[in-house]
Amino acid sequence: MSILAVGSVAFDDITSPAGSVKNVLGGSATYFSLAASYFTEVRIVAVVGDDFTAEHENILKKRGVDTRGIEHASGNSFHWGGHYTENLNEAKTDYTHLNVFERFQPRIPAEYQDTQFLFLGNIHPNLQAAVRLELDKVRLTGGDTMNYWINGTRPELLETLKLVNVLLINDTEAKMLAGDSNLPRAARKVLAMGPQALVIKHGEYGATIFFREGAFGIGTHPFRAPALPIEEVKDPTGAGDSFAGGFMGYLASQSELNREVLKRALFYAGVMGSFAVERFGTERLQSLTREEIEGRFQLFRELSHLE
Amino acid sequence: MSILAVGSVAFDDITSPAGSVKNVLGGSATYFSLAASYFTEVRIVAVVGDDFTAEHENILKKRGVDTRGIEHASGNSFHWGGHYTENLNEAKTDYTHLNVFERFQPRIPAEYQDTQFLFLGNIHPNLQAAVRLELDKVRLTGGDTMNYWINGTRPELLETLKLVNVLLINDTEAKMLAGDSNLPRAARKVLAMGPQALVIKHGEYGATIFFREGAFGIGTHPFRAPALPIEEVKDPTGAGDSFAGGFMGYLASQSELNREVLKRALFYAGVMGSFAVERFGTERLQSLTREEIEGRFQLFRELSHLE
Repeated sequence: MSILAVGSVAFDDITSPAGSVKNVLGGSATYFSLAASYFTEVRIVAVVGDDFTAEHENILKKRGVDTRGIEHASGNSFHWGGHYTENLNEAKTDYTHLNVFERFQPRIPAEYQDTQFLFLGNIHPNLQAAVRLELDKVRLTGGDTMNYWINGTRPELLETLKLVNVLLINDTEAKMLAGDSNLPRAARKVLAMGPQALVIKHGEYGATIFFREGAFGIGTHPFRAPALPIEEVKDPTGAGDSFAGGFMGYLASQSELNREVLKRALFYAGVMGSFAVERFGTERLQSLTREEIEGRFQLFRELSHLE
Repeated sequence: MSILAVGSVAFDDITSPAGSVKNVLGGSATYFSLAASYFTEVRIVAVVGDDFTAEHENILKKRGVDTRGIEHASGNSFHWGGHYTENLNEAKTDYTHLNVFERFQPRIPAEYQDTQFLFLGNIHPNLQAAVRLELDKVRLTGGDTMNYWINGTRPELLETLKLVNVLLINDTEAKMLAGDSNLPRAARKVLAMGPQALVIKHGEYGATIFFREGAFGIGTHPFRAPALPIEEVKDPTGAGDSFAGGFMGYLASQSELNREVLKRALFYAGVMGSFAVERFGTERLQSLTREEIEGRFQLFRELSHLE
């Protein structure tokens, strides 16, 4: 089943202890699409400017991504500059030029109307909701958000959360959204806001999925996929979006959503996130093989597997 | 096989968002001993003052702990006061009265000379080394340390690490000891200092064990035991010592040290640490049942278990 990603396509300037790059293709929808493309067919809805050339589009097309939903507007694309210090867990933003993204109104091509799997990247919750409501064949909606929307547009976000089946956020975001510093309690509170499942990302420690009572008919026990620590982290940009791409891409590739499928999806999510950080930008995600992905999946599985 | 714990026995005054207690029995050797007592026989070497009564000793004796190694000195016992704010991950120390602990010189009773499993709690590295060198039948030495010794007595600590088979420390300590903010690289550097295995504790995210090439003849792949997040964390004091008690206690109870035994030990470590935080002080560790321990072990195992 193909999956539709809505979000940003951007150019990034990134500095980390491992080096520096300028004008590399980035954005939440880009990372998500490339990661998901190893599991299923991917469609993308985003807006770009005049600086987005055929060469950039080819990065997506080479992975089979359907780019008909990319709107070309006059001006420059979203441009982000940031850096990481020795502690690679946190990005420091140097500048954010929204450019054409500032007036982004997602337009769904007619060919995408049969979309059954949808991922709402980190954009204004009202835009997320509008996209979801425009598509009437959706079976599963995944969503992301961030502190900016949690604090700045809380009422709108709470409305959108009623439309999201699986919310994927990190520890800080979950605790902020719930107003509770205890993780499992925070999870319970977020699930009460609408989502049937909540994936909380723990960075290098992996991720945990919490389920609402009765969700997917699979019980309420949480599940954790550990991540193998990576020795060479070059650039954490896009790790969370690549994680979401692995998760949603694997789900969309399966005929049934049961507990075992969701567990495996969480492992594939960690796998794709861990590949993303090994090179600057999307470089590593452009040329993976299914063998490499399966190899790391087995490593992650062995990491915590008791006989 | 019995295990000998060397460390502190103390009285603690603790305040957390869940409440406040005064003069509760604590100290690294106390938490370690109680946790380990569910797996094997435990001996303890520590020093206490006049305020340590038969009632306090009975807390240990009831769990079968051999207290003949507790030295009674004139004065007050080690007394620690601290508090936790909403973020329960970090203790803020209000006061530390070393009292009789200031001149602690571990004395090993003759009856303990056959000790084969040893745990060196968080004390001056010179004292840790002296204890280890006094015992010539030891098969496995576990050790703890902290920022205070890493920064203040680094040369002494490096000597002691050559005598320690398994070092158990947290992320911050491992990175500080190695001078490297990348966890797996830090682990490699610490293992080069002497230990055959390094257990890095990640708090609520569990723990990872890293192995030196050739250690225990079990390969170098790391292993992670995830911890189930606990909804009601009342008091994190002693979680790390209880973790170590579960780990070393389980190892001492086994006839062979192979990879599967070390993996299970890491799970039992997380189990005992998670019980410890559910009540103030050692309360929860005083009256557990083997059934409760096995039940949580299964929960933790299920948490990340893929078919």
